[in-house]
Amino acid sequence: MSGEPARREGEESVALPATHDAGLYFIGRIRTPWTERADCPKNGLQSDAVCTVLVDERYRPGLRNVAGASHLILLYWMDRAERALVLQRPRHADGLRGTFSLRSPVRPNPIALSVVELLGIEDGALRVRGLDCLDGTPLLDIKPYYASTDSRPEAVLDRSGLQGGALA
Amino acid sequence: MSGEPARREGEESVALPATHDAGLYFIGRIRTPWTERADCPKNGLQSDAVCTVLVDERYRPGLRNVAGASHLILLYWMDRAERALVLQRPRHADGLRGTFSLRSPVRPNPIALSVVELLGIEDGALRVRGLDCLDGTPLLDIKPYYASTDSRPEAVLDRSGLQGGALA
Repeated sequence: MSGEPARREGEESVALPATHDAGLYFIGRIRTPWTERADCPKNGLQSDAVCTVLVDERYRPGLRNVAGASHLILLYWMDRAERALVLQRPRHADGLRGTFSLRSPVRPNPIALSVVELLGIEDGALRVRGLDCLDGTPLLDIKPYYASTDSRPEAVLDRSGLQGGALA
Repeated sequence: MSGEPARREGEESVALPATHDAGLYFIGRIRTPWTERADCPKNGLQSDAVCTVLVDERYRPGLRNVAGASHLILLYWMDRAERALVLQRPRHADGLRGTFSLRSPVRPNPIALSVVELLGIEDGALRVRGLDCLDGTPLLDIKPYYASTDSRPEAVLDRSGLQGGALA
């Protein structure tokens, strides 16, 4: 929670449950050029930086065949993010937004997701392009990106309508 | 683990750590028409079924503005999946595959991901199209789908090459 900005006007948090429902293993770490949150790109396309995904030795056999994918989905754990906020006032927006309408790291389960371009794999280290996270971020999962099911170029966002208006 | 198929030839598991590194909250449940694993579509595009995502009352304020997204990314928890397998022999493949080259629910952190079309929201219930999971699956997160960063129609998979051959 250190480094978290003070609560902004109207932001709303909930009491989180006393216990967790399931547990995660960190399977590696992500090395990036960014050590301060303010330095991180807003998303993975805003930087050309090549980052390195280091997979723990235990899990490295699971990397077999991964080199056959041009793009991967990485899931990682935003371990510095507050988890109780359900309404947030993002700096870029003009009002309060529901947490699930944002890609903010602040959410009940701070699992971040990036689609990255795979440049190479060697000895449990993946060179990728398209990350936005702090150096040392814990890795949760690596998945192949399937254009057939994961790519939806037609997807749109209506950021202005608070309830979004009519939906098809 | 019940209902898990017996280990197939050559499949390899690892000793998982004794403790978890982070904890998850289930924030809701997914209602689908499928109550047996064999009935589930292989992916969310193989069915036109409209499914319902029920968000727990505690987290419902977080749904504000979500209706403005035509597509969402849902993260959910494959609570029946084995977690220790790093090499798997999928039924559709001709050999062993690394876990991270597959979208199988069997993985160290069994977080599944689907891109869904949002049809409507009412009282904490989202009607969506594009899911593939069992009825009652625990929900972890809802994110807006951003075509700009999440859609990569050019992504390709080389399923034949065990190490994938040359990468750009």
